[in-house]
Amino acid sequence: MQRQPVSIFERAFKKLVPGGLESMGRRGSDIMNIAEDLPESDLATVKEWIDDCLAENGGQVEARKRAALLGRAYLKLSMTGRTRFLGLLAEHYGVNEASVESAIDQWHNAKANEKTKAAQSLRKALIPSRTALLKQFNGVPSGVKFLVDMREELLQLCKDYPELKPLETDLRDLLATWFDIGLLQLEEISWNSSGAILEKLIAYEAVHAIKSWSDLKNRLDFDRRCFAFFHPNMPDEPLIFVEVALVNGLADNVQKLLDEHAPTQDIDKADTAIFYSISNAQQGLAGISFGNFLIKQVVSKLQVEFPQLKQFATLSPIPGFRRWLENTPADQLTQLPGGEEWLSSPPPRDPVRVCQADPTGAQQEAIMKLAASYLCSLKPGKPRANDPVANFHLSNGAQVARLNWMADTSDKGLKQSAGLMVNYLYELPKIVDRSNRYTSEGVISQSSHIKKLLK
Amino acid sequence: MQRQPVSIFERAFKKLVPGGLESMGRRGSDIMNIAEDLPESDLATVKEWIDDCLAENGGQVEARKRAALLGRAYLKLSMTGRTRFLGLLAEHYGVNEASVESAIDQWHNAKANEKTKAAQSLRKALIPSRTALLKQFNGVPSGVKFLVDMREELLQLCKDYPELKPLETDLRDLLATWFDIGLLQLEEISWNSSGAILEKLIAYEAVHAIKSWSDLKNRLDFDRRCFAFFHPNMPDEPLIFVEVALVNGLADNVQKLLDEHAPTQDIDKADTAIFYSISNAQQGLAGISFGNFLIKQVVSKLQVEFPQLKQFATLSPIPGFRRWLENTPADQLTQLPGGEEWLSSPPPRDPVRVCQADPTGAQQEAIMKLAASYLCSLKPGKPRANDPVANFHLSNGAQVARLNWMADTSDKGLKQSAGLMVNYLYELPKIVDRSNRYTSEGVISQSSHIKKLLK
Amino acid sequence: MQRQPVSIFERAFKKLVPGGLESMGRRGSDIMNIAEDLPESDLATVKEWIDDCLAENGGQVEARKRAALLGRAYLKLSMTGRTRFLGLLAEHYGVNEASVESAIDQWHNAKANEKTKAAQSLRKALIPSRTALLKQFNGVPSGVKFLVDMREELLQLCKDYPELKPLETDLRDLLATWFDIGLLQLEEISWNSSGAILEKLIAYEAVHAIKSWSDLKNRLDFDRRCFAFFHPNMPDEPLIFVEVALVNGLADNVQKLLDEHAPTQDIDKADTAIFYSISNAQQGLAGISFGNFLIKQVVSKLQVEFPQLKQFATLSPIPGFRRWLENTPADQLTQLPGGEEWLSSPPPRDPVRVCQADPTGAQQEAIMKLAASYLCSLKPGKPRANDPVANFHLSNGAQVARLNWMADTSDKGLKQSAGLMVNYLYELPKIVDRSNRYTSEGVISQSSHIKKLLK
Amino acid sequence: MQRQPVSIFERAFKKLVPGGLESMGRRGSDIMNIAEDLPESDLATVKEWIDDCLAENGGQVEARKRAALLGRAYLKLSMTGRTRFLGLLAEHYGVNEASVESAIDQWHNAKANEKTKAAQSLRKALIPSRTALLKQFNGVPSGVKFLVDMREELLQLCKDYPELKPLETDLRDLLATWFDIGLLQLEEISWNSSGAILEKLIAYEAVHAIKSWSDLKNRLDFDRRCFAFFHPNMPDEPLIFVEVALVNGLADNVQKLLDEHAPTQDIDKADTAIFYSISNAQQGLAGISFGNFLIKQVVSKLQVEFPQLKQFATLSPIPGFRRWLENTPADQLTQLPGGEEWLSSPPPRDPVRVCQADPTGAQQEAIMKLAASYLCSLKPGKPRANDPVANFHLSNGAQVARLNWMADTSDKGLKQSAGLMVNYLYELPKIVDRSNRYTSEGVISQSSHIKKLLK
Repeated sequence: MQRQPVSIFERAFKKLVPGGLESMGRRGSDIMNIAEDLPESDLATVKEWIDDCLAENGGQVEARKRAALLGRAYLKLSMTGRTRFLGLLAEHYGVNEASVESAIDQWHNAKANEKTKAAQSLRKALIPSRTALLKQFNGVPSGVKFLVDMREELLQLCKDYPELKPLETDLRDLLATWFDIGLLQLEEISWNSSGAILEKLIAYEAVHAIKSWSDLKNRLDFDRRCFAFFHPNMPDEPLIFVEVALVNGLADNVQKLLDEHAPTQDIDKADTAIFYSISNAQQGLAGISFGNFLIKQVVSKLQVEFPQLKQFATLSPIPGFRRWLENTPADQLTQLPGGEEWLSSPPPRDPVRVCQADPTGAQQEAIMKLAASYLCSLKPGKPRANDPVANFHLSNGAQVARLNWMADTSDKGLKQSAGLMVNYLYELPKIVDRSNRYTSEGVISQSSHIKKLLK
Repeated sequence: MQRQPVSIFERAFKKLVPGGLESMGRRGSDIMNIAEDLPESDLATVKEWIDDCLAENGGQVEARKRAALLGRAYLKLSMTGRTRFLGLLAEHYGVNEASVESAIDQWHNAKANEKTKAAQSLRKALIPSRTALLKQFNGVPSGVKFLVDMREELLQLCKDYPELKPLETDLRDLLATWFDIGLLQLEEISWNSSGAILEKLIAYEAVHAIKSWSDLKNRLDFDRRCFAFFHPNMPDEPLIFVEVALVNGLADNVQKLLDEHAPTQDIDKADTAIFYSISNAQQGLAGISFGNFLIKQVVSKLQVEFPQLKQFATLSPIPGFRRWLENTPADQLTQLPGGEEWLSSPPPRDPVRVCQADPTGAQQEAIMKLAASYLCSLKPGKPRANDPVANFHLSNGAQVARLNWMADTSDKGLKQSAGLMVNYLYELPKIVDRSNRYTSEGVISQSSHIKKLLK
Repeated sequence: MQRQPVSIFERAFKKLVPGGLESMGRRGSDIMNIAEDLPESDLATVKEWIDDCLAENGGQVEARKRAALLGRAYLKLSMTGRTRFLGLLAEHYGVNEASVESAIDQWHNAKANEKTKAAQSLRKALIPSRTALLKQFNGVPSGVKFLVDMREELLQLCKDYPELKPLETDLRDLLATWFDIGLLQLEEISWNSSGAILEKLIAYEAVHAIKSWSDLKNRLDFDRRCFAFFHPNMPDEPLIFVEVALVNGLADNVQKLLDEHAPTQDIDKADTAIFYSISNAQQGLAGISFGNFLIKQVVSKLQVEFPQLKQFATLSPIPGFRRWLENTPADQLTQLPGGEEWLSSPPPRDPVRVCQADPTGAQQEAIMKLAASYLCSLKPGKPRANDPVANFHLSNGAQVARLNWMADTSDKGLKQSAGLMVNYLYELPKIVDRSNRYTSEGVISQSSHIKKLLK
Repeated sequence: MQRQPVSIFERAFKKLVPGGLESMGRRGSDIMNIAEDLPESDLATVKEWIDDCLAENGGQVEARKRAALLGRAYLKLSMTGRTRFLGLLAEHYGVNEASVESAIDQWHNAKANEKTKAAQSLRKALIPSRTALLKQFNGVPSGVKFLVDMREELLQLCKDYPELKPLETDLRDLLATWFDIGLLQLEEISWNSSGAILEKLIAYEAVHAIKSWSDLKNRLDFDRRCFAFFHPNMPDEPLIFVEVALVNGLADNVQKLLDEHAPTQDIDKADTAIFYSISNAQQGLAGISFGNFLIKQVVSKLQVEFPQLKQFATLSPIPGFRRWLENTPADQLTQLPGGEEWLSSPPPRDPVRVCQADPTGAQQEAIMKLAASYLCSLKPGKPRANDPVANFHLSNGAQVARLNWMADTSDKGLKQSAGLMVNYLYELPKIVDRSNRYTSEGVISQSSHIKKLLK
């Protein structure tokens, strides 16, 4: 995860306040001189400054300059200082309970035709005062990225400081509004994209790490495509991106796909688009989901550029498989296709060794069968697949289409997925129906290949 | 005000749903076949369709397609049909009162550390269900402009159908979020801008009408600048724009400024930027204000491009002056500087005739004094100038600097402002202080020229 | 024809020489102070200045600044002054005959393996010295346009001052090198193009005048396309442009095509692209031809964007028909199909009256037949059609496909073409062959419709 | 030096000839099937094909397609094949001597007023027929780069095959016309430039090799600038580029400048722009010079962006110094300042050892003095410095300003320049005069520091 260096924000600040700190009055230097651990005495300075931001003295334009300065001060704090700063926001800038009570009274007393207005008043009373401060940051160059990074820190800190949770939730709600899918832009990333964006791909790729610039270039070659969502206020920061390979037939091995020395596919003859990597780039946007939109918009784009494409599918890891296999009690495993065979095979029953040792077909088949079972298993009482990647694609309306043996032999692939990978198939005319049946009833669409494994 | 023709939205729809209506199932044609006055029978079809949008069957991507289709159906309705459609949204898709009551109970019962969560739940319960539908439009090409235009219609209809007001308010709140200043882009408009944008300037200019393309070209000449805010989802639609002339000294006559045959100012020698026209372009965004930001950002831009500039000022109409002069009782006028002189001048006391008849200096002076009084007068009991344009610039921190005689001799200028115009001066180091004193105490900064008139 | 105003060149000059005239030394002001009719005394100043440009004192960068200043001085001259200036260039800056003679001697004395080098030396000796000066202008902002406009003037002046011809020819050769088709860029012009470019379309349209900005907008509507070639050094100046309508079947009437109130064609259903106007925009590039490339590249573009197109054709005037009909002696006319019928019809035999008077079918047919004959007639002894537009399309490989009665009822259309228009059909697989047969043997491809008329 | 892979040209070809080889007729496959060493039998095929290109059958558009196919065939040849191909062009497609003789006769017989026309005819007769073929490539996507690369090969081959020289010269003349400075575009290269361009910097940097992408990023940091010339037909290929560091005072060490861990200079406080690397990127453009223009245009750009800059200077190697020191006879060295001291110092007299061994001041001073002598020495009888880099900057009008000890301790720096580097100073008001005096009289401007060394 790559965060903005302080310096970028400083440059942004310079642009906003060309006169510099001096032009902000006495307190401008007060706020910049707070100690990095933010001792009690400096907390008061910060509080005064925040109040000033909220009062909007001198108008909104001035208020946003003050917010920028506050952001700059924040970035200079130590982790202790930041925690105290965030604690201040969480504790003192929530909703005013008295105002809420009074608005509730109004609501109860409102006549029928006054209800809507009373509802709006009550809604307003329920907005924490800190929200106005947070909003000021979107008018600051780099300010949106500042908030995204701040939420990333908050998510970490909440584990130890649960009192920060309300602040984190407010920030998520605000970011969810700004990062509404309709405000995002889908852009193709290619070798003609800027160095500033390309280096982010390397930093953010979360599924199959990009080893070098030449690895990256290979992934952007003529037979590949990469698309990302961007927010207008963070033009150099992809939010999520997907890497696509144009191939013939379903791809069955990711190392082959990523081999820099493999010849380029003649794209005129490609019939299948393989989505082999989807990475969320901003951890500060956790819980705000773009993947579904990304895949569907990319499919539309590809259909226009390559009318000859007949299949859209993924080549995906099964990240929870190995742990599931190890943690599932034997009596449950035996109930499953392949379970008995697996348990009766000679120890150590390590699927990775099996992979590497060129096992008997029987062992391989047992593992494949169990993986199919895992993929198609639901969480107890919910229409939700056990495997998180499966759940993502199934809720998008995909089908579990094919399991591939020894398809990802990287350390991570072996460790998490026992070297297996799965193709999820997006059959466009059936997507709506499959998505509905999965999300409402937990019905998982399976290809005949999978069905056979499950017998 | 220029609205999108149906055809643009249709094209947008085609892009979103390349498969066309047929791909949307049986009800897709139902919704397109509703009668244009939306009789009772068809209302049910619409309601069903809206419920379908809200249910998000098949996922969010599908839901937005349905919203697009609904928008297309709406645009084909007559005004009667639209009123009924909007009435349906206003009546049936508000907040669920039972849910609100239950959330209020939770709030009351919440322990201290549960209050935030309860507040969030209550806030959610207070969001009308129609909001989710409206939000879907931002994912539709041209969908944001659709909502802006819909609000313009709503504002008109609310006069006769007050029951639509809650819907209008919800829409305003939603648009205010999307059109937050931080999400807008300041762009220069020049003769190198696209025809699609240039024609909008002609259509939207609200202060000094643009008579022709050559008038427009003249306003974009080398000694002029024009800037506008744009929203990323409405790239061809300026939201607000300002026209600036680079001149020597304060400009005192708008016809001279707009004379197509006047020679171009040598901008190396210009020392003053005159903001001579600011127009809000989208009536559907009424109440969401951008002017303050626009002026200040433009001042920053101009300072960078033209370091030699020494003054930033407007040349503004005084739109309420003539009406005020006619409607103010004589006994009040006599209290004001120039009042007695004016009332004792021979009838008809028509300031326009005075203007045109090359009056005695005395009459002219009386009018100037009264205009100064008017400009510096406040609404009873409020820190708010009587004149709306004055109020705008004063709250931004400007000074009333100079009154100009016979400065706008157009029909409108004579009729509204008696041919007078005023320069508001933006002195950058004093803006914050002036804005604060005006908005809190109603103190209006006056130049010595104005002070003299008021003696 | 729109020429650059002096002011643009002045601005360009300022950019090149920010220090201004003063920074160019004493002679800098000498050259700017020459009298506008360029008397003998000032001619010497100019000559000195030109010599200085050619000497490249201080390096090439300085030399180009001097050229810029010379250009600026030229633009301030009266027509008399310009003529004298150009005369100076034509007379004094040609080839040095002695150097040529000496290079010829070297050529004659060169051994076999020295011939190439001798040829190169001789070629160099044959380059007039003014060429170096002219070349310097391409490094001056707006300098290429300056030369294009200068050639336009030269072409006019050569009629009265034949001694300028060598200069004109040198300039043409230089421009032909710079405006080589491979260095040009094909760009689509749409309503999203800049005002600066759009106004040029209005100014330059030579076939069917654009009456207003709304006429222009209509020609750039969704069912229309417009493409132009641009040179990198003249980014706002189209060199040639073509207007295309997407329709169903061959278009038979240009007024219908240009009707602003006609509904937009559903382009999904269009099967034919009609090239209804091709205009050369720069008279200073006369004799350097782009039309052939333009049409073929546009056809390629359209095929990609609209795979459903089945026909590419023009709707073209027959500009020489009426004059030909009037000037052809009766005894020749009678030899032609329709000739006798025409000559035996009652006077006045004015085809326009016939058009307007709703003639008997016989008269109409006679005119159509004669027009077909005219279109398919060649200049004596050459493989070159009499009609210039016919010659252009036939040499590109088109077929004479259909004559349309009353297809252009504008004054110009009636006056030149007797209201007739013709469709030239570009059948892609046959273009090479037809072009070859026409240009080598004068064979004109005719549709069966035309063949029938010629019987 | 990075050449286009065949594949790029193939893709370009596909774009030009979407129908593919098949659409080019029988001979289309003939030309693609020639053997890679181009035996005699296939030479005939090639010749026929070239003749076809020159005949322009079917028009110019078709001819350029044929040229594209020829280029593609060329790229598949082995070096033997290419040599034979080029030999064919050099031998058979020169000037027609008979035509030249006849044009010479016309010239001799021409009357005074016919001389210009005769000169033009003769000039045309002197253009080799191959030129028309070469020109066709500029209309082919990637065709200009193809010719540039072909010239690079030619320059190599000419060493062994002098008969190719005339072809190489023709190609240079043609490229010189197309790459005229006025047709080039100066562009800033930054971390926002495309990956495709950035990788070229790494490949092409010729002075201080770029070691990695992070080295590159450091060279494009906030206190650095990089500018390049581009040709419109080779948008991804820099022709020449310069790297600039914004610093305080003259830089004296290139390793310090390139240190990735050094803090970024506060550019508001920088007073000096150091040009520390200029690289020609296209060896195929050898002999066509851009450096002078590049430096001067970059200086102009920097002055606008950073008005606070007071000095423009280089930090340059002295590539010929070490060799000169070793090869100059002792009796000549003793004549020079420092020569005696150097020769009397104890052997081995290796300047690099001196550098590394922290020598006595005396030895260091002797080397510095000799380096100053070398820098200010001219080739016998010519106004041309012995050192090629010195000659470049001096002819641009720079001054030899300062010698820096141990300024480039890379292997190359030690080996060529004995670790020394020199600052050439560009004092803008003196450039013209210095350039003139150097190029005409060989006068080298020296700072007082250099003068002192030379005493």
